Amino acid sequence: MKPTRKIKMGMVGGSTDAFIGGVHRMAANLDGQIELVCGSFSSNPEKTKQTAESLFLNPNRAYSTFQEMILAESKMSKEERMEVVSIVTPNHLHFEPAKMALEHGFHVICDKPVTFNLHEAIELEKIITKTGLVFALTHTYTGYPMIKEARHIIQSGKLGKVRKVVVEYPQGWLSTPLEFSGQKQADWRTDPKRSGISCCMGDIGTHAENLAEYVSGLNITEVCADLSTFVSGRLLDDDGNVLLRFENGAKGLLHASQISTGEENDINIRVWGDKGGLEWHQKDCNSLIIKWLDKPAEILRTGGNGLSGIASATNTRVPAGHPEGYLEAFANIYRNFAFAVRAHQNNIKHDSISYDFPSINEGVRGMLFVEKVVESSKEGAIWKKM
Amino acid sequence: MKPTRKIKMGMVGGSTDAFIGGVHRMAANLDGQIELVCGSFSSNPEKTKQTAESLFLNPNRAYSTFQEMILAESKMSKEERMEVVSIVTPNHLHFEPAKMALEHGFHVICDKPVTFNLHEAIELEKIITKTGLVFALTHTYTGYPMIKEARHIIQSGKLGKVRKVVVEYPQGWLSTPLEFSGQKQADWRTDPKRSGISCCMGDIGTHAENLAEYVSGLNITEVCADLSTFVSGRLLDDDGNVLLRFENGAKGLLHASQISTGEENDINIRVWGDKGGLEWHQKDCNSLIIKWLDKPAEILRTGGNGLSGIASATNTRVPAGHPEGYLEAFANIYRNFAFAVRAHQNNIKHDSISYDFPSINEGVRGMLFVEKVVESSKEGAIWKKM
Amino acid sequence: MKPTRKIKMGMVGGSTDAFIGGVHRMAANLDGQIELVCGSFSSNPEKTKQTAESLFLNPNRAYSTFQEMILAESKMSKEERMEVVSIVTPNHLHFEPAKMALEHGFHVICDKPVTFNLHEAIELEKIITKTGLVFALTHTYTGYPMIKEARHIIQSGKLGKVRKVVVEYPQGWLSTPLEFSGQKQADWRTDPKRSGISCCMGDIGTHAENLAEYVSGLNITEVCADLSTFVSGRLLDDDGNVLLRFENGAKGLLHASQISTGEENDINIRVWGDKGGLEWHQKDCNSLIIKWLDKPAEILRTGGNGLSGIASATNTRVPAGHPEGYLEAFANIYRNFAFAVRAHQNNIKHDSISYDFPSINEGVRGMLFVEKVVESSKEGAIWKKM
Amino acid sequence: MKPTRKIKMGMVGGSTDAFIGGVHRMAANLDGQIELVCGSFSSNPEKTKQTAESLFLNPNRAYSTFQEMILAESKMSKEERMEVVSIVTPNHLHFEPAKMALEHGFHVICDKPVTFNLHEAIELEKIITKTGLVFALTHTYTGYPMIKEARHIIQSGKLGKVRKVVVEYPQGWLSTPLEFSGQKQADWRTDPKRSGISCCMGDIGTHAENLAEYVSGLNITEVCADLSTFVSGRLLDDDGNVLLRFENGAKGLLHASQISTGEENDINIRVWGDKGGLEWHQKDCNSLIIKWLDKPAEILRTGGNGLSGIASATNTRVPAGHPEGYLEAFANIYRNFAFAVRAHQNNIKHDSISYDFPSINEGVRGMLFVEKVVESSKEGAIWKKM
Repeated sequence: MKPTRKIKMGMVGGSTDAFIGGVHRMAANLDGQIELVCGSFSSNPEKTKQTAESLFLNPNRAYSTFQEMILAESKMSKEERMEVVSIVTPNHLHFEPAKMALEHGFHVICDKPVTFNLHEAIELEKIITKTGLVFALTHTYTGYPMIKEARHIIQSGKLGKVRKVVVEYPQGWLSTPLEFSGQKQADWRTDPKRSGISCCMGDIGTHAENLAEYVSGLNITEVCADLSTFVSGRLLDDDGNVLLRFENGAKGLLHASQISTGEENDINIRVWGDKGGLEWHQKDCNSLIIKWLDKPAEILRTGGNGLSGIASATNTRVPAGHPEGYLEAFANIYRNFAFAVRAHQNNIKHDSISYDFPSINEGVRGMLFVEKVVESSKEGAIWKKM
Repeated sequence: MKPTRKIKMGMVGGSTDAFIGGVHRMAANLDGQIELVCGSFSSNPEKTKQTAESLFLNPNRAYSTFQEMILAESKMSKEERMEVVSIVTPNHLHFEPAKMALEHGFHVICDKPVTFNLHEAIELEKIITKTGLVFALTHTYTGYPMIKEARHIIQSGKLGKVRKVVVEYPQGWLSTPLEFSGQKQADWRTDPKRSGISCCMGDIGTHAENLAEYVSGLNITEVCADLSTFVSGRLLDDDGNVLLRFENGAKGLLHASQISTGEENDINIRVWGDKGGLEWHQKDCNSLIIKWLDKPAEILRTGGNGLSGIASATNTRVPAGHPEGYLEAFANIYRNFAFAVRAHQNNIKHDSISYDFPSINEGVRGMLFVEKVVESSKEGAIWKKM
Repeated sequence: MKPTRKIKMGMVGGSTDAFIGGVHRMAANLDGQIELVCGSFSSNPEKTKQTAESLFLNPNRAYSTFQEMILAESKMSKEERMEVVSIVTPNHLHFEPAKMALEHGFHVICDKPVTFNLHEAIELEKIITKTGLVFALTHTYTGYPMIKEARHIIQSGKLGKVRKVVVEYPQGWLSTPLEFSGQKQADWRTDPKRSGISCCMGDIGTHAENLAEYVSGLNITEVCADLSTFVSGRLLDDDGNVLLRFENGAKGLLHASQISTGEENDINIRVWGDKGGLEWHQKDCNSLIIKWLDKPAEILRTGGNGLSGIASATNTRVPAGHPEGYLEAFANIYRNFAFAVRAHQNNIKHDSISYDFPSINEGVRGMLFVEKVVESSKEGAIWKKM
Repeated sequence: MKPTRKIKMGMVGGSTDAFIGGVHRMAANLDGQIELVCGSFSSNPEKTKQTAESLFLNPNRAYSTFQEMILAESKMSKEERMEVVSIVTPNHLHFEPAKMALEHGFHVICDKPVTFNLHEAIELEKIITKTGLVFALTHTYTGYPMIKEARHIIQSGKLGKVRKVVVEYPQGWLSTPLEFSGQKQADWRTDPKRSGISCCMGDIGTHAENLAEYVSGLNITEVCADLSTFVSGRLLDDDGNVLLRFENGAKGLLHASQISTGEENDINIRVWGDKGGLEWHQKDCNSLIIKWLDKPAEILRTGGNGLSGIASATNTRVPAGHPEGYLEAFANIYRNFAFAVRAHQNNIKHDSISYDFPSINEGVRGMLFVEKVVESSKEGAIWKKM
């Protein structure tokens, strides 16, 4: 059954003075499959009102709280009411709205890390399983076409058995005590009450962990971590180095940092198997370098020659050489989420390719990772199973 | 006066089996400022209908012809009717819909090159002047933040007097006689009846010309061109090399090619003044290299440190390191067009920054360029003034 | 017959305060095949003496003039005397020592451009033919392994018929009137009495021309040039843009500049055939990018996987990843020259691979190129056959 | 006192079928300061003889054993005899010739790692201290001009307090069981009797460790290592991941691998301080990227603008843009060793800049590193002080 209208979305968090809300909205807009119809954008009702206005929403659908939104929208006609909820609040405010939305029959797309702690993540997993609704987690980097191609190449066995994975996420934005200047992003991310037990590992370490598992197709089974807080007065980690072991015997390294002065958001990954290796950097996100035992290295390109995976093709919008970027990767998650929601609505079993986005399993893995690296580091960098 | 709703847009061309229509729609969607409400997407009414359906449009607003659309929408209430028309047809079908739309009071955003020939471009310029409406031309590459920064740096005098400009647009997609395989894009672009007097120079040479003039802030005053048709049976040029002279005495080179086998869409530009130089490649569109007489080269980055122009900042959506790409550059044109339309609607004189997109002047320059390089080449590569 | 000792070399020019003499000596030293035994390093006998001392030469073999050197060495025993002469003087001082050396039975290796003008180059060619001695011209860039591989790939037909060649040599060192500051290199290169009819085209345009013909395996048959002098008071060109036509119908562009502010010595070349393309930049001299019609691009690397030419292998010294550079490229010319000299001494017909270095033919082509681009430009950029 | 002749060198190891001997000879040749006069190139006297012949040495100075060489040369006149010994044998054959050479008054330049084990390294240190002779260790990568600049920049405090160091040396050449094919380099490096307790960590881990300490100016104080042997049947490690702690509280990561399939020799380093960061890759050895807290990143280039250290200038031979590579870096060690030897011979106290090469201290650090990472890994990746 062909869809006849856009999917209606409500948003929790993301007032105009936040950062990630706008990114979610652009990602949701891009492909014209989703329409924002309501929101509870801020704990401050005035801000919510202003945000709704700036987004041309019906003022009656600017809600003071997520509870109010979910209850009010639930009562609307099927034609009119929101169908999915996008949650873009800080970590400590993910679980409650996600739970309530799911329990009221709304599909959910949620910013990462999935929850405040592992316990909540496991609870949420149960609710998702029980409700059978669609849940997407915006680990954006797996939305890049070349990352999907990388995963496909490894799955296909072309690189042989994976032996080593190096994944990095260096940032420099917390090199100074930015949180004490009142900068909003720094403020909550370094606050244990809102961020959880980790700043760097929770915020970007989980991205790196997710990327490593997604691309390699392997679970990390053990971590040995050395986390640090370099900026004086900071309450959580701002840097971490982690030795990794994978389920198939592969070894690896993960490092993430918010004090790598001068770095932007250069998440990158390298994987080596016994027949070849691959390398990808967000900075050059449309290239994937494949290195061979006995042939010249190849440069695979978004939309370019010789791509083997249909996942990369279906997640590409423009011809090779016209760079696609972060918002397109983000939009791939929203679009694939929309496809899965439509499939659910039509009671169609969606295939694995259109259901190609991170979900609660990735969320639980992320929270487990955070818990284990914090434990490992506290005990002096000893191996912890995960 | 704050806007209270999205700008309503109609589209001419761009059925689901075309290429550039979808790109325009994504670009228009991204920032949530524009809403597609109607269209005449194809000369085939069935295709128009299907396209409208897939875009969730009101079937009554899927029009068989652009004439029908303009007339019907003109009669609707101000609240309901389209306010702007997006034209995404092949070159020979730009002028008529643009003229009619403008004459019925609709602002226009149009794909490039602006018209089929120079004569039409000049006519269109008169109509735009007369109507006073907003006209945008989607020379996308000037939408990149780092291109805006490049222009700003040169305008600021930091690089001194411009001496040399090298601009290139190598593509490889027409290395084989693709038009004889029925490929739709190749078919019309190599057809003099639909494309005009040039294929390569019209399609991508104008992009290079526009980029050179935009970044340098200088008009090209003379060209000496050697155009070629390398693929046997092809009716128009598929490659061209052009010597350039600029108004201030600077010299330059432009080359564009559709037979540069293996190239994607690597438009790039280098400019050298007497104090410094700059370099930008679409492939790495978020970097702008600045080279100095006596200091180390600097890497400016979208959203990064040390940008001097507000144009680059206002045309950036995400933090440094999260790549923005072609669709964002395209969306910058749509968004700035939307701002200009709103200013016009509110009778506000828009400033030069929000009115930062190519318009009819750039369109006329482009058609003049095409006419002159074709003349120059036909006469054996002699200098032609433009 | 195996060699039992190093080849003995004398040098004309290259006192310790010159630039290129030291480069020649390092290149000659690298492989331990050549031994500097004497020299006439400067017109100033005191400088010659000091240079000889600093090079640990026998003071009796530090000669006041090249004539003296050639005559004195000619009288020594075959065991003791120099066997080859290296000429590293400015352009106007190439012909006379080369002629005299050859006429006294010494092989010659000479800096480029080969002579002061075309007439001298043709004269020199006759002398070389007549004497049958070995003559090498240090167009260094053809000494790079990846350039040899590029030539081989095109010769092998893998890229199909060559259609387009773009070759560039941007430098920035003459962006200011350096010659008026007394800088020695700038002084003679901008002086028509020592440099010839061109500065930029003679000094680096010939490198670009040589690289284009070497890599493509095609002669340039026509040029259309626009040369400029941007720096006020300068007597010769400091920039030039040239349209090229090749013997097989291929087209191309050459630009060379000494006023590309902030550029180092970024000579680079791109060639496109109907099956593929290639790209090489001196800045990344150990990589050669091969681009295909329908396969991913490949990165060939000095000493790496998948090289097809034995020329690249025999001109490589260290394993892949350990960069080789300019001095190694230069040394390849000296080493191959040494091999050719030994072959001559042993009356062995050397094969084309060991005789792989530029010689008088390349020198004549270079001088012809300079003459024709200067003519073309003077006449307003019209086509000149060469 | 000005030198009047080249320094005379003997070599231990390095027959024509070895790899590193030829590299040492080219490095020693480049600058014309050193002359190879004798050698004991192989345990096979026939090979020694052939090698001597191919190097045009006096056959009487081709010695069967290093003992013979040292004794015979000791008896020659001061004018004639070798002055320095270059040792290029496998690891287990470094200590004995070095010891004997030093005890007979010869300066020594030795391949790395310095000895077979830590005990020997400490013994050697005592001998060097006692004899007061010059000892150089060819950790080549610290010979690169941009590495010297990097060290200088950090020493100058421009990057602030160092917080994090990431150093990597991925290679792929041992991805397969190459040692069982008879390949000579693989054979001895994987053999505990010749290589020592480690293959990967000893051969290239020490390079990474040396680079990290040289550039940062900080000693590693603790390591936590996870070493692996991925290739079945191999007797030593072929991969290792190491967490690092530095004396000033900085943290870091080192990984080295011989099974990173498809990698060449991409040693690289990144350092972040609280004011800025730097990045260097051997693959692009002439560039050093400096990243700032609040300014655009800068690209420093060998021989280019804005270099602050005299060490980088004095270790550069050609103008910017003409790449210098591995052999030049290697030659810098030989040349600086030669300067130090001359200073010693003339009883002049050499300054730190001309004495800028790795010596026994770096050798001892390297052996300590190997011992500690092997211990740490054996005990399950626990912290070991070093």
